[in-house]
Amino acid sequence: MTFKNITVAGAGVLGSQIAYQIALKGFKVTVYNHHIDTAEKRLHALKADYQHDLHLTDEEFQAGLDNIVNITTDLKAAVADADYVIEALPESLDLKEKFYTELSEVAPAKTVFASNSSSFIPGQLVKYVDRPNKYLHMHFANKIWRFNVAEIMGTNQTDPAVYQEVVDFARAIGMVPIELHKEQHGYVLNAVLIPLLGSAMQLWANGVSDPQTIDKDWMISTSSPMGPFMIIDMVGLRTPYQMEINTYQTTKDPIHQTIADKLKSMIDAGHTGQESGQGFYHYPNPEFEDPEFLKK
Amino acid sequence: MTFKNITVAGAGVLGSQIAYQIALKGFKVTVYNHHIDTAEKRLHALKADYQHDLHLTDEEFQAGLDNIVNITTDLKAAVADADYVIEALPESLDLKEKFYTELSEVAPAKTVFASNSSSFIPGQLVKYVDRPNKYLHMHFANKIWRFNVAEIMGTNQTDPAVYQEVVDFARAIGMVPIELHKEQHGYVLNAVLIPLLGSAMQLWANGVSDPQTIDKDWMISTSSPMGPFMIIDMVGLRTPYQMEINTYQTTKDPIHQTIADKLKSMIDAGHTGQESGQGFYHYPNPEFEDPEFLKK
Repeated sequence: MTFKNITVAGAGVLGSQIAYQIALKGFKVTVYNHHIDTAEKRLHALKADYQHDLHLTDEEFQAGLDNIVNITTDLKAAVADADYVIEALPESLDLKEKFYTELSEVAPAKTVFASNSSSFIPGQLVKYVDRPNKYLHMHFANKIWRFNVAEIMGTNQTDPAVYQEVVDFARAIGMVPIELHKEQHGYVLNAVLIPLLGSAMQLWANGVSDPQTIDKDWMISTSSPMGPFMIIDMVGLRTPYQMEINTYQTTKDPIHQTIADKLKSMIDAGHTGQESGQGFYHYPNPEFEDPEFLKK
Repeated sequence: MTFKNITVAGAGVLGSQIAYQIALKGFKVTVYNHHIDTAEKRLHALKADYQHDLHLTDEEFQAGLDNIVNITTDLKAAVADADYVIEALPESLDLKEKFYTELSEVAPAKTVFASNSSSFIPGQLVKYVDRPNKYLHMHFANKIWRFNVAEIMGTNQTDPAVYQEVVDFARAIGMVPIELHKEQHGYVLNAVLIPLLGSAMQLWANGVSDPQTIDKDWMISTSSPMGPFMIIDMVGLRTPYQMEINTYQTTKDPIHQTIADKLKSMIDAGHTGQESGQGFYHYPNPEFEDPEFLKK
């Protein structure tokens, strides 16, 4: 594995986690972001979670920060000696086109490009890069230090040696590499999670049962710590709402409109999930944390 | 809750568990089975699991057995004073028709009938009973003392008071009642589990990723103790094989034929899942019990 200098483009919620995790594992990291102060704030804000979950000392956390050698708004400077660029920009096709076009012009020939995109598969973005054999996707989950998977997906143009290098890099930064051998919308996790959440919402929208009962059945029967509606609360209701709208437009199956309507009325009432204090459960101290929840 | 005398019809794997669990909770239980010795053997064989999982003493286990007051091949005698009959016979429509026709003739007017059927919804069986207002389904999971859900589903003819009585009875025997307000194939659990397993098998059959990698992604990302292919190994490969054959016949989507073919070649090789010593993993000591499994 030859990657040494890593550039993370975009210091949003996930971009800042990716940058810090890589730096913590000893790589030199440059962060490219439109606002330097926002990027700094996000990186420093990770301290509480990292210290709580991984028991880092102040010195250990700081050692990670010290490996973030540059935070810049200048893309050319950001990638001047980059072995690997991970793009974690917002999910806008225009924005990605603009970024990859510019990146292709300023990056050295050696640089491998990866997108963290959830919405797009690499085949949709590869046309904007000048080096399709060095382009693939590396997709992280929120709270990457705990849910430490890196889903890795190339196109049929991706050089297998580059793919393998990224797999090795994933291990080097503490991720479990999830290797995809074909392009797949939703990678592996969302490809299996979304049908589960969708069928749970169908039972609810059809009046078969209520979210709490569905969650209990799932949790008891599979020994899982979370039921489908707890997961939806964590993700936030807006994402499944948009998915159901999209599915209705494709399939015209009225159940998807029914689900979307029910989610919409919750969203309109401000009950958008965990972050708002209410979704299918109330937060903090949701009903399912009561030790009696699974017993009655 | 007025149920006192309970009859369990069929002492197969699940029937014997249902009978013993009810007896352990202090109800008088009669078992109806074609072979008395088989029924006795199955009931006694539960001792190891109950003692291991629930830490019952010999005396406590025996107290449960003592509440099984009769094991008989005579249906009329088995239900002479039954408040509640739970049918756990094999999933054959002919067999269920014959049973409910005979049961309707010999059971007292007070007796409530429930089927543990997984394959049929109550609307498919209610025509064979003489008391549709006292008929519903109460569906248990294997190892009912651990996966202690009872999915309860009536028809639109089921008396709400009878439904409530069964809900209360479920709690009284240590189950968490999962109330379904409409008929639903697969109840709640299979209605959400089957789409998850199906989409995982699609990723495998399409060559997107391999079962072990898919399981790892699921387990790390949802903190679940089992991935989809571990669940399939536990259930056994024949059930998903038959489901994919059925789905192919309905949808003609070739992916279901591909999945069925891949499962078939494993089944033909004798790799039918956990019970055979091999499925997607090897047993005992499957690969996922290695502490390193989720780390690389």
